[in-house]
Amino acid sequence: MSSRVGLNCDMGESFGQWPMGHDAAVMPHIQQANIACGFHASDPDVMAATVKLAQEHKVSIGAHPGYADLQGFGRRHIPHSLEQIKHLIAYQVGALMGLTSQVGAQVDYVKPHGALYNLMMVDSQVFSAILAAVAQLPGKPALMVLSRADNSEYQALAADSGVSLLLEAFADRAYTREGLLVPRNEPGAVLASNTDILRQTALLAAGSVMTQDGGLLELEVDSICVHGDNPASIQTIADIAAQLSGKSPLSNT
Amino acid sequence: MSSRVGLNCDMGESFGQWPMGHDAAVMPHIQQANIACGFHASDPDVMAATVKLAQEHKVSIGAHPGYADLQGFGRRHIPHSLEQIKHLIAYQVGALMGLTSQVGAQVDYVKPHGALYNLMMVDSQVFSAILAAVAQLPGKPALMVLSRADNSEYQALAADSGVSLLLEAFADRAYTREGLLVPRNEPGAVLASNTDILRQTALLAAGSVMTQDGGLLELEVDSICVHGDNPASIQTIADIAAQLSGKSPLSNT
Amino acid sequence: MSSRVGLNCDMGESFGQWPMGHDAAVMPHIQQANIACGFHASDPDVMAATVKLAQEHKVSIGAHPGYADLQGFGRRHIPHSLEQIKHLIAYQVGALMGLTSQVGAQVDYVKPHGALYNLMMVDSQVFSAILAAVAQLPGKPALMVLSRADNSEYQALAADSGVSLLLEAFADRAYTREGLLVPRNEPGAVLASNTDILRQTALLAAGSVMTQDGGLLELEVDSICVHGDNPASIQTIADIAAQLSGKSPLSNT
Amino acid sequence: MSSRVGLNCDMGESFGQWPMGHDAAVMPHIQQANIACGFHASDPDVMAATVKLAQEHKVSIGAHPGYADLQGFGRRHIPHSLEQIKHLIAYQVGALMGLTSQVGAQVDYVKPHGALYNLMMVDSQVFSAILAAVAQLPGKPALMVLSRADNSEYQALAADSGVSLLLEAFADRAYTREGLLVPRNEPGAVLASNTDILRQTALLAAGSVMTQDGGLLELEVDSICVHGDNPASIQTIADIAAQLSGKSPLSNT
Repeated sequence: MSSRVGLNCDMGESFGQWPMGHDAAVMPHIQQANIACGFHASDPDVMAATVKLAQEHKVSIGAHPGYADLQGFGRRHIPHSLEQIKHLIAYQVGALMGLTSQVGAQVDYVKPHGALYNLMMVDSQVFSAILAAVAQLPGKPALMVLSRADNSEYQALAADSGVSLLLEAFADRAYTREGLLVPRNEPGAVLASNTDILRQTALLAAGSVMTQDGGLLELEVDSICVHGDNPASIQTIADIAAQLSGKSPLSNT
Repeated sequence: MSSRVGLNCDMGESFGQWPMGHDAAVMPHIQQANIACGFHASDPDVMAATVKLAQEHKVSIGAHPGYADLQGFGRRHIPHSLEQIKHLIAYQVGALMGLTSQVGAQVDYVKPHGALYNLMMVDSQVFSAILAAVAQLPGKPALMVLSRADNSEYQALAADSGVSLLLEAFADRAYTREGLLVPRNEPGAVLASNTDILRQTALLAAGSVMTQDGGLLELEVDSICVHGDNPASIQTIADIAAQLSGKSPLSNT
Repeated sequence: MSSRVGLNCDMGESFGQWPMGHDAAVMPHIQQANIACGFHASDPDVMAATVKLAQEHKVSIGAHPGYADLQGFGRRHIPHSLEQIKHLIAYQVGALMGLTSQVGAQVDYVKPHGALYNLMMVDSQVFSAILAAVAQLPGKPALMVLSRADNSEYQALAADSGVSLLLEAFADRAYTREGLLVPRNEPGAVLASNTDILRQTALLAAGSVMTQDGGLLELEVDSICVHGDNPASIQTIADIAAQLSGKSPLSNT
Repeated sequence: MSSRVGLNCDMGESFGQWPMGHDAAVMPHIQQANIACGFHASDPDVMAATVKLAQEHKVSIGAHPGYADLQGFGRRHIPHSLEQIKHLIAYQVGALMGLTSQVGAQVDYVKPHGALYNLMMVDSQVFSAILAAVAQLPGKPALMVLSRADNSEYQALAADSGVSLLLEAFADRAYTREGLLVPRNEPGAVLASNTDILRQTALLAAGSVMTQDGGLLELEVDSICVHGDNPASIQTIADIAAQLSGKSPLSNT
């Protein structure tokens, strides 16, 4: 089995003297780097270094804008008007474009971060505001969102704005019958064993997922989101990458 | 007398709930708006509003990047490496470009702010670093710098990088014999009377300035920098604008 | 009529180069200055200047802590755990105590700001957390809260923690039958005429308020909150102060 | 050999989601914790956790205030007036006092951080400003400074202000004949071997140091500064602590 499904990972989340993540170890295994833009993590120097690292590994560059909340890492919801969300997106993606321009690279897509991402997935007005901002940006980048059982509403809105969607799924998260992620605080929400993760990867690459209750659900998947938080997770990423490229033992089953 | 010399003014310096300046009153009189980019002043919402205001008045938009120092308003020198200065410029100008893209406007030029501007004028390595960053930015905006008696070194560096320079002068500041601004803490550094300011405007528009010791010095001038801090200064701006457009009594002398 | 009811006003809300409010004009008229602590407004220099101004006018100093949100001025709710709220309060009040110590002044009370104040009034767990933090602070300052028709629950909690409450009311806001403020977006929420404001001041000083539907409600009042946003409001403050001190014509009616 | 010389270490330098240092591993070995105060590192939650950790290990708590520069970690010099430095110190130490008050602990001393520390050691006006601020703080904490061959000037200034000095030295840094630290960019500036570090520790505890050119210099030492940046450094700290407590083999030589 070989696959066109890519791996995406949040990158460039260091800030000043504080390192975060293992970008150099993860970058060789992924196809898409979601680079933080200085509001919830990163700074201009970290962003520039991450852009170069992505470029060296021929990894597609995505902007990863979030709420202006370093201390909360963009994970706390902060009330914004729709206009303010547009400005937030335009400012941060533009800033990353300023840095990619320095090395002849480009921003291919936008993936909102944290609380803003979660809000976008439950509030179609916020989603539309983000689409409107992205549609006006130079080069009209794509927008990466969570794939769900029914993506038709968001796909229709995106088509109206002329923005391409990238649908992402999670290799290590359990799914409900409705094609939503099982909330993290519920038992079994996060797949613990590498075997389970690789099995789900194989299914996702084939366009489906096994839900919590054992059913098989079709799921459109352009990219699988992975996390490089610790040494073990980097091995998992390498295994998933091997799985997707057909080099894993499991890929022959 | 009519003139191609424009007026430029720092704009968009409000932040959150704190207003600053009289942008709406000043914008009709100027040709170039130096818009702060969120590091020393402004925020994405203020920037978006200022871009729209400039666009309504057909005013050229410049990025006004500074050190990341809201409390010090970018007026305190903060040590940066040359690489860091490039990143600072690319990030902030890119961010403004993200916002101009939303309304189909563009960033025509870059004018560094405060302590960074002062450093650029005395350190040609910093000037070259800023040139290098600007040269890579989309659309290759111009760079606005202080015009001095001898601009040849900076003009040569700019020519090498393919970046256009915009040379600015001050209508309300006294000049030394060497074509430098008289430091603010010296007597007579700031021209107090509108008559003196308008006389200097007329001379600058004609390509010269009378120095502190009464001599006449040639000075290349593309733009005159004005400040809209208070109601009186707005009247002065209006007078200077009238003077430059040939509508002022003094322009007939 | 003379009264022990004080006037309190938010002060020290300038930040860096951005002035806000008319502290010097307001301070002579009030008894209690709620000084911002650097998270939603103010900075160490502004705080030090405001402490001195309060001291010169023998005005009681209160700490006015808020969410860490300069751009949103502390008016946006940002999720915090109860422990985090305690830390937020302790940090900011302590910081102001550090500055009052420099001039031999002291922090007499704490009044949370903006979204944190609103949350405290509707969530007794948050109120209890703030009480717990204040109870441990050096000198055990008082806590200023909104007076409502029934203050018994909050008074009991405060008594348990050994913290004194200061109950504040608003001279310029309409009250519901339940003793709550009419929301700002409803018609008549803000009293427009000085006559109405002074009439309400007189009633509040006497321990009651006329509600929206014309009834008279008892209300415990230790302090009346005023705002010094613009020149007109400063005159209103002066009128209210005169009213409370028995020097106003209306006070004889 | 047993000793009254303590070990001090910078602690509480994490920020939001970014961990830094190995506070839990270091705390058992030291006598004095220099806790960052939220301007160059730390936040109210990190500070509260660090205060508790210090308290559990009966470690003396010091405030470690720095410039407001998270991205630069307080290592970049930012111009401040003497008044501003006083406010910076009073604000940050007060903030930590607010947090120590929550658990019945106290701030015993103040040690400025990074660029502010370096400035204090070369500019006696800055030192005096800091002394003046510390002298007014509740409980009048001590001030920790670098011990040099001749401490008489700073000791006289401290005596005038009634503030106690804590003189610190470095176990892992080479000293010049004048009793200054060899600059980091010179060869041999940092002692590489644990044997050398323990030998210097033994000498420092006895009140002297061997200088770069082999001479023996008297040096007043109240505390030795250590760093817990990585696992190896934690072992070094444990060795130094054992050395000072007379439990190390080297302490018998």
